[in-house]
Amino acid sequence: MSKAVFYHAGCPICVDAEQVVLRYLDESKLNTEIVHLGTARNRIEEAESAGVQSVPALVIDGNVYHINYGASLEDVKKG
Amino acid sequence: MSKAVFYHAGCPICVDAEQVVLRYLDESKLNTEIVHLGTARNRIEEAESAGVQSVPALVIDGNVYHINYGASLEDVKKG
Repeated sequence: MSKAVFYHAGCPICVDAEQVVLRYLDESKLNTEIVHLGTARNRIEEAESAGVQSVPALVIDGNVYHINYGASLEDVKKG
Repeated sequence: MSKAVFYHAGCPICVDAEQVVLRYLDESKLNTEIVHLGTARNRIEEAESAGVQSVPALVIDGNVYHINYGASLEDVKKG
């Protein structure tokens, strides 16, 4: 099964995108993890290494999909 | 069932995002249509009305999710 990680920071755009990820991604094909970078700050480096530049972002098998635009990772770091 | 429309213009970023849409969206919950605005130019106005500003973009039940960034609709119009 493929692995998906949804990175967000709790912003309204993030929460909206999270609903789509949780509702419509096929659970039989994807093992999805939700990571709130505002609270799990020790995962910020991992997100950066994966190529995440802003949140919300969905990483599937190493490919990064930025969805709309909530906040840059630089802003999340300041947060 | 919810309705999803994936708008793209054939660019590499669009094609990549299309694979995710086709592979991982849950077909039991979403009726997904793929629209290539480069060829179906009569759908550009519809996309704009839905709030699409760039492609690739996924519209689910009226909510627009821009995925990464391939091309602006203005560029698609020139295309």
